[in-house]
Amino acid sequence: MDSKFTYNFSTTPATEILKTFAQQPIDLTNPKVITAERVEKFLAEDLGFQVSYATERVTEDVLSALEALAFEAGVFEKMAKMQAGEVINCIEGYPSENRAVLHTAVRDFFDEPQTAKPAQEAASLAKEQVHKLAKFLEPLNREQRFHDLLVIGIGGSELGPKALYQALEYLANSQRKVHFAGNVDPDGLHLILKNLDLKHTLVCVVSKSGTTLETTVNEEFAKSYFVNLGLKPEEHFIAITGEGSPMDNPNRYLECFYIWDWIGGRYSGSSIIGGVILSFAYGIDVYLEFLRGAHDMDKAALKKKPLQNLPLLVALLGIWNHNFLNIETLAIIPYSQALARFPAHLQQLDMESNGKQIDKLGHFVNYVTGPILWGEPGTNAQHSFFQLIHQGKSPIALEFIGFKESQTKHDFSYQGTTSQEKLLSNLFAQAIALAQGQNSDNPNKQFLGNRPSHLILAKELDPYRLGALLSLYEHKTAFQGFIWNINSFDQEGVQLGKVLANRIIDQFANNDKKREAQYPIGQAYIQIIKEKL
Amino acid sequence: MDSKFTYNFSTTPATEILKTFAQQPIDLTNPKVITAERVEKFLAEDLGFQVSYATERVTEDVLSALEALAFEAGVFEKMAKMQAGEVINCIEGYPSENRAVLHTAVRDFFDEPQTAKPAQEAASLAKEQVHKLAKFLEPLNREQRFHDLLVIGIGGSELGPKALYQALEYLANSQRKVHFAGNVDPDGLHLILKNLDLKHTLVCVVSKSGTTLETTVNEEFAKSYFVNLGLKPEEHFIAITGEGSPMDNPNRYLECFYIWDWIGGRYSGSSIIGGVILSFAYGIDVYLEFLRGAHDMDKAALKKKPLQNLPLLVALLGIWNHNFLNIETLAIIPYSQALARFPAHLQQLDMESNGKQIDKLGHFVNYVTGPILWGEPGTNAQHSFFQLIHQGKSPIALEFIGFKESQTKHDFSYQGTTSQEKLLSNLFAQAIALAQGQNSDNPNKQFLGNRPSHLILAKELDPYRLGALLSLYEHKTAFQGFIWNINSFDQEGVQLGKVLANRIIDQFANNDKKREAQYPIGQAYIQIIKEKL
Repeated sequence: MDSKFTYNFSTTPATEILKTFAQQPIDLTNPKVITAERVEKFLAEDLGFQVSYATERVTEDVLSALEALAFEAGVFEKMAKMQAGEVINCIEGYPSENRAVLHTAVRDFFDEPQTAKPAQEAASLAKEQVHKLAKFLEPLNREQRFHDLLVIGIGGSELGPKALYQALEYLANSQRKVHFAGNVDPDGLHLILKNLDLKHTLVCVVSKSGTTLETTVNEEFAKSYFVNLGLKPEEHFIAITGEGSPMDNPNRYLECFYIWDWIGGRYSGSSIIGGVILSFAYGIDVYLEFLRGAHDMDKAALKKKPLQNLPLLVALLGIWNHNFLNIETLAIIPYSQALARFPAHLQQLDMESNGKQIDKLGHFVNYVTGPILWGEPGTNAQHSFFQLIHQGKSPIALEFIGFKESQTKHDFSYQGTTSQEKLLSNLFAQAIALAQGQNSDNPNKQFLGNRPSHLILAKELDPYRLGALLSLYEHKTAFQGFIWNINSFDQEGVQLGKVLANRIIDQFANNDKKREAQYPIGQAYIQIIKEKL
Repeated sequence: MDSKFTYNFSTTPATEILKTFAQQPIDLTNPKVITAERVEKFLAEDLGFQVSYATERVTEDVLSALEALAFEAGVFEKMAKMQAGEVINCIEGYPSENRAVLHTAVRDFFDEPQTAKPAQEAASLAKEQVHKLAKFLEPLNREQRFHDLLVIGIGGSELGPKALYQALEYLANSQRKVHFAGNVDPDGLHLILKNLDLKHTLVCVVSKSGTTLETTVNEEFAKSYFVNLGLKPEEHFIAITGEGSPMDNPNRYLECFYIWDWIGGRYSGSSIIGGVILSFAYGIDVYLEFLRGAHDMDKAALKKKPLQNLPLLVALLGIWNHNFLNIETLAIIPYSQALARFPAHLQQLDMESNGKQIDKLGHFVNYVTGPILWGEPGTNAQHSFFQLIHQGKSPIALEFIGFKESQTKHDFSYQGTTSQEKLLSNLFAQAIALAQGQNSDNPNKQFLGNRPSHLILAKELDPYRLGALLSLYEHKTAFQGFIWNINSFDQEGVQLGKVLANRIIDQFANNDKKREAQYPIGQAYIQIIKEKL
């Protein structure tokens, strides 16, 4: 029998053991606990990354039980099946998407490619798109016709690509800029378009289905600006869409790039979506190097040693904090301005994947699944919400990201240390302070401590490591889903709102008594707008 | 005896009543509950704002008990004292900041000014700064010497001003741009500076104490770029600081503007900090109109009718969700791209103010205080984390913000509705869907509903309404603090991390054995950086 039919997160032996440990977790405020030795010991290394978890509320025993949990959940088999292209996006016994999950295939161009046929076929399709992209960019780069790229897409078509684009802005060596318009809010797109030289603007419209409301409307909105200037949209617009979608139309676009149903929007950052953007802005070699980093982490995620498999390690630490120590939220704090929007991408990646209430058999689960994930860069965040993390009533788990060196190598030395050293000092100080706390006779200077965190450290944030970091989080998310036995790859929860929005849009469009009778609640809100404002 | 000595949130009669109601809150999934009548009824109006709370889990009884809670907590007296300039930033019996809280004074230039002496004096000082600003800008505007403004400041000196600047970008009618550098990360500042024409760049350094680590370092870093080009920093730099601080030095700056200890960083958006930025970018009249909106909401916050006092109403709804329905986090979702960074400002405002564990008498409280606050703009957020809000295991309370009209008036009509109407339709649909949920035989299409939200609606986001909205949130935060009987105006929780960061910075600077022995934990982290990466 398949392990997924016998394994149950809430009753598996490791869970029982972890529950016992969680009744009295290690007290990090005890001055004997966090020592230099612990810092040296609770450290994992792979692909040049160091994960330091001395400031988590774990012991050797807890770690062993977490390792056992990983094996009981069959996470290695599940990860191998995913990367091989088995149909894992499904709910047994109910209609569901029934798809493979192959975002790893879009970077499976390097060492030791997958041998399973679905994965090979997917990689081959993806590789074709990269070749098509290289061919498309060649005359563009030669003629320098386009200075700006406007990306019209929402959700996974915006958050991930934008975070990746911003993360590598230090590589910009031309005047090329990329702009993103996701929101149907007309102000957002108008303010971008009015400041662009449209004659030299390329527009990339991204929608797998080719029917996303916001993207369709914004595409038409953008086209109207081109037409008003006497420019032909079909000479400026390209598409990224599913093969055969309503957008797959060479008459409308300079070029159509393809994505497939085995790439979820939130897992599409390394697909041709990221490809078009990173290659336009920084060159296709940067994109390929980024893919190589992601691919290497894909391989690393297959390692069957939980404490040396970095995505799995951080997944397990997250489950310990969330399911056993009952911490409801996870704050991701990159000590890197380049990663300012990376938490917003991870917010979608994690919450849309694992914000689920049923398991893969369609049963409502009796344990918590994906946490609420949020975050802003440090040190900025220290001057914002860290007050609550140190002294508030809601415990928060933290994941810190930091780098030894600056990207630009324009570091600044002042009073004996560089800015990068000051940045790192703050990062370490927060992890220690949150864990150890502080006693004081003044209750306002009392820090209760025992706020858990871990640190993901690397030498520098370059394309390779950015790819690896993205992949690390994709696999962390998948591993947590495997352990919770949920489907991390669908998003049924966004449907109801879409249906109701369309009813209210209809009501706005046909504001007569007949319609009013059809959806009185929607009409009541419209009345507030029309009559009270 | 002062009410603050007798009132206790956890035992006050209204709390007892609310606890009883919370055992069986109204079921919003009952199709008879959310009706057009309820939408029309659960609505509050002031200053052109509508607050719609039909989708909160409240009944008339709950609302009455919340009103009673407001009176029992003495919130009106406390708000009046705050605006009059009494010393309310204090903890009784312990050393504390012992200051007045007078961010309202920086906009008390319009109708019915405060009559209490401290408030009048503060308003008079603030007004002087506005005059100084007008005088400073006059030759600048005439000569058009500066095209760009770089703001160096962190926390309240960055998040609020940046959110306000972005919110009004539709007013930009010149090539003037404002850039923000908070983080000590050298890449952030370098990437800004390398793209600026420094000859035409004005730099505004903001630090009340004049000693903020990140700001001091970044000021020196920025100066080095000017010096390298043969430009004199003192002809490009201005300061906003406390009178008499190390930065209050006319030799170093073109001009020094003042703030005072009665304006907390997170409450300083409407002070001369916002003044310099908004006036440079959009003109001083925009700033004054913004102040007028904030001032009018200050007055509205003094209204002694809880359900008609908008800041108090949303404060009470928040307390119902957080303390009684046990919802740990609040998501703020503005359906407005212009407000994209407004949640990040509110995150600091709310979490740094109310993320506290002791009450104003120094007692550890036995109830939850400030929630975890996070958010991104809609409709983008629908395509990101709304999956978890609809179908996840962690309940989330929502605060939506929406506007009838676009800012730019470049709305786009497509298939019978405008983009703004589509935006609003989505906003309303989410509130309804989250509350009502949906039944289905397919468990993956089941929405449990009863996710509470309210909507803050206005005609459009102009300077006046932006000021009013900022003030609404400042007073919401203060009201919640009054009810929890905590000090919303200090931030002792950020101190420990600063102390430890300085120890590690010293260790980086003097990396010898002696130092190593002094702080071995810090040294252990430095070793990871130096030897493993």
